[in-house]
Amino acid sequence: MITTILKDKLKYGISVVERISNKSLTLPILNNILLKTEKNFLNLSATDLEMGIQWWALVKTEKEGKITVPAKLLSSFVSFLPNKPITLKVKGVDLQIECENRETTIKGIDAEEFPIIPKISEEEKLSVNAGIFCKNLAKVVDIASFSSTKVEISGVYFSFQKDIITMTATDSFRLGEKKMYLKTKSTLSKDYSLILPQRTAKEVINILSEREGDVTIYFSPNQVMFETPLSETKHPDIQIISRLIEGEYPNYQEIIPKAYETKVTFKAEELINQIKLASLFSSKINEIIIKADPKKGELFISSQNPDVGEHKGSIKVKVEGKACEVSFNHRFLLDGILNVVSGEEKNPEITLDLNGSEKPGVLRSSKDENYLYLIMPIKK
Amino acid sequence: MITTILKDKLKYGISVVERISNKSLTLPILNNILLKTEKNFLNLSATDLEMGIQWWALVKTEKEGKITVPAKLLSSFVSFLPNKPITLKVKGVDLQIECENRETTIKGIDAEEFPIIPKISEEEKLSVNAGIFCKNLAKVVDIASFSSTKVEISGVYFSFQKDIITMTATDSFRLGEKKMYLKTKSTLSKDYSLILPQRTAKEVINILSEREGDVTIYFSPNQVMFETPLSETKHPDIQIISRLIEGEYPNYQEIIPKAYETKVTFKAEELINQIKLASLFSSKINEIIIKADPKKGELFISSQNPDVGEHKGSIKVKVEGKACEVSFNHRFLLDGILNVVSGEEKNPEITLDLNGSEKPGVLRSSKDENYLYLIMPIKK
Repeated sequence: MITTILKDKLKYGISVVERISNKSLTLPILNNILLKTEKNFLNLSATDLEMGIQWWALVKTEKEGKITVPAKLLSSFVSFLPNKPITLKVKGVDLQIECENRETTIKGIDAEEFPIIPKISEEEKLSVNAGIFCKNLAKVVDIASFSSTKVEISGVYFSFQKDIITMTATDSFRLGEKKMYLKTKSTLSKDYSLILPQRTAKEVINILSEREGDVTIYFSPNQVMFETPLSETKHPDIQIISRLIEGEYPNYQEIIPKAYETKVTFKAEELINQIKLASLFSSKINEIIIKADPKKGELFISSQNPDVGEHKGSIKVKVEGKACEVSFNHRFLLDGILNVVSGEEKNPEITLDLNGSEKPGVLRSSKDENYLYLIMPIKK
Repeated sequence: MITTILKDKLKYGISVVERISNKSLTLPILNNILLKTEKNFLNLSATDLEMGIQWWALVKTEKEGKITVPAKLLSSFVSFLPNKPITLKVKGVDLQIECENRETTIKGIDAEEFPIIPKISEEEKLSVNAGIFCKNLAKVVDIASFSSTKVEISGVYFSFQKDIITMTATDSFRLGEKKMYLKTKSTLSKDYSLILPQRTAKEVINILSEREGDVTIYFSPNQVMFETPLSETKHPDIQIISRLIEGEYPNYQEIIPKAYETKVTFKAEELINQIKLASLFSSKINEIIIKADPKKGELFISSQNPDVGEHKGSIKVKVEGKACEVSFNHRFLLDGILNVVSGEEKNPEITLDLNGSEKPGVLRSSKDENYLYLIMPIKK
């Protein structure tokens, strides 16, 4: 291989693929990035065997070839170079790099040892705006939680129906659900649902959230692929391919309350501040008590820990319906408010629907009906 | 105790003392801050038994008293409060805090259990500009290194002579020396030298580097105190008192070369970048090789590691004297350049004096004759 590419372009490509290369002691090749020329394209790939990421750029190629080199080393090295043309040469299992008055040799591993990244053959696909898709996914992705007993909730559940994509995640203590309405009619021939591993979902957000234009999602029974095109060509620019989590996602719709006994409306920042204060005095199970008083129009927040002390605070709110006292885990309550407000205007108005001390609470923004965050109470 | 203080003032006071309160399992009182009223002053203290820090503020006191409470908890709690008056009340061993519509109780430990912070009786003292003193100290403080066999080098060595303070630190691989000239004549009756523990030196920089005006240094045989006054009063504002390290500081002057065989003059940023690149390919002992060529006017930087690869780079420099090849630890060389440039103009010119491959190199800024950084070579 002999090819030339600008530093900033190569640095971007490495940043796209490097995060999933990992410190594998049993399979050192997984620490490496595969560099490969395909005519006038340079292709970088990395995989952790569950997910594969590929990136392409147009380059000047004098001679085709391929090699794998350690991702972290290549990334650090290239980041210290000036933004000038970089010449990459493969010699045996060495990658030789020249940039102005620098000559460098990185010891690699033969490209033949690199795992094959599977391809998706299915033709079923759907294109959506990449930025909006990522912004919606970001509202639920952190709620999913690794579970060895309930593997289904380790991922984000997607339901594709007509003109709507529903994304859901839960760790069984709380649940987030975001609906995304498509501007154009879906190209899918039928409804699809799938469970995407949390790690893939996070990489999709990391890599694609700043992209302009569309991302195309390709469907197959066990895999999914996210692809963006190289500008002004039909050639792909980035492909993220991932296995799916097998199993039936919990039928969560039945736990979402259809009505409320108490509805509290408040400014996000004021409650955030009170939760942070109360959290310092919460018990080992992170319990804080909230009490909505419709007569006074106040929400009382309190906590106590025999070893630390106790705290009582209150904020002015609007309370509709009955008085209500309920205990929540302060971390999950705070997370919920932060998820509801993310991407919203500064200090928006939020509602909390309650149904007594034994039923879950539901947080929503007054401005966005398409996101809900459900939180289970701490029962006495 | 019943006293009232503004949140921002209390928050600042806590930030001054809290860093030395530590997680002591054997002596839990050391995790605590002592709060004490002294007529119309609120006094906060913390100690780790080697160093004590005190802070005072003018407050409205209704009733005198004292208590100790956990530093981290008080600090987090106060930081979440709005900038309003805070009322502090002691009730038994509880600290009750009221701020607007919040009522909080923090469980404390009786003030009688708090260690007594010693006082300095000596009258010998010297006042210097706090900001300049800290800026100078910052150029050497990180070089000192904990050593159980040579306890003297665990601190920063100060020599006070007439109108000059010399500050020196070493870890036996490199050494930094900074001279600070006093604008007014020293008030000391004789020369002093002392070894200040690195931790105290770091706290002095953290607490006093942003202060306007002078810091007064009080001398005693085994202790030193740094004091700043409360504006427009003679009352102290902050006192940092510390034990000194006993022992004889190494007679380092004899290892500082008086002449050079080779002098290299270069722009800091260019060499920093080359060192970072070469560091990726250095051996386990962090070795990189530099070679000064007076004919070509170039400095060659190279490194190699049989497991990783190799790197060669060069920069244009001015070389006076003989050609020279020498190996350094890349971390210490980079640290040295960063210490020389800190506080200087952007990308200043630096000189490196060399005396063959067996003798130390000396880094200086072309603009500042009062700082030198000496680095030992890696001998073959």
